[in-house]
Amino acid sequence: MPDLKFAGGLIPVVTVDTRTREVLMVAYADREALDLTRETGLAHYYSRSRKKIWKKGEESGHLQRVVRILVDCDEDTLLYEVEQEGVACHTGHRSCFYRTLDGEEIAPRVLDPEKIYRK
Amino acid sequence: MPDLKFAGGLIPVVTVDTRTREVLMVAYADREALDLTRETGLAHYYSRSRKKIWKKGEESGHLQRVVRILVDCDEDTLLYEVEQEGVACHTGHRSCFYRTLDGEEIAPRVLDPEKIYRK
Repeated sequence: MPDLKFAGGLIPVVTVDTRTREVLMVAYADREALDLTRETGLAHYYSRSRKKIWKKGEESGHLQRVVRILVDCDEDTLLYEVEQEGVACHTGHRSCFYRTLDGEEIAPRVLDPEKIYRK
Repeated sequence: MPDLKFAGGLIPVVTVDTRTREVLMVAYADREALDLTRETGLAHYYSRSRKKIWKKGEESGHLQRVVRILVDCDEDTLLYEVEQEGVACHTGHRSCFYRTLDGEEIAPRVLDPEKIYRK
């Protein structure tokens, strides 16, 4: 395994849909989140706002099955290739990158966000 | 324009090949690098190690023509969709993400890195 660089304990993760190749989201992992991802085959991240490990989909059911993990040349960024259950974005869009910088929506909302978090 | 969140003056940028949809690299931009990118149509970043603005390809000639810039739901990450001249990675691979976490190379080196930096 490469000598990953965790800055302040965290490494950025780009998450890509393995079927459509779409970038779904960018988040961060600490060593434990990465280990959990590898052990369970489900994407785990570290939430900087909640200051804890976070299994993607733990509340929404929208899990990410990790097919492959890539690392970049500098060993300071990861890429999770995933099969996305439901949608990646809490807004109900498949990807968190659904807008241009000028505010144009380039992808539709496919789920009602009120229905994503059912608990 | 959304209220972008620059953490410590920087925002992460995922750069994607607009034709192949491949993730080419992840880097950072400050406000000035972003403004230069929009003004010139060529990808600019901020180099944390060299502590300066960096036009991608300024030494190698491997420019990135920016077709569209997306922003994520939290407005703390950007995505540049680019037409990549040559290769994105200084190793001579098209993408910086050419290896799995287990060290398997999933994409070939397409250029000799010694020939990339000609000056």
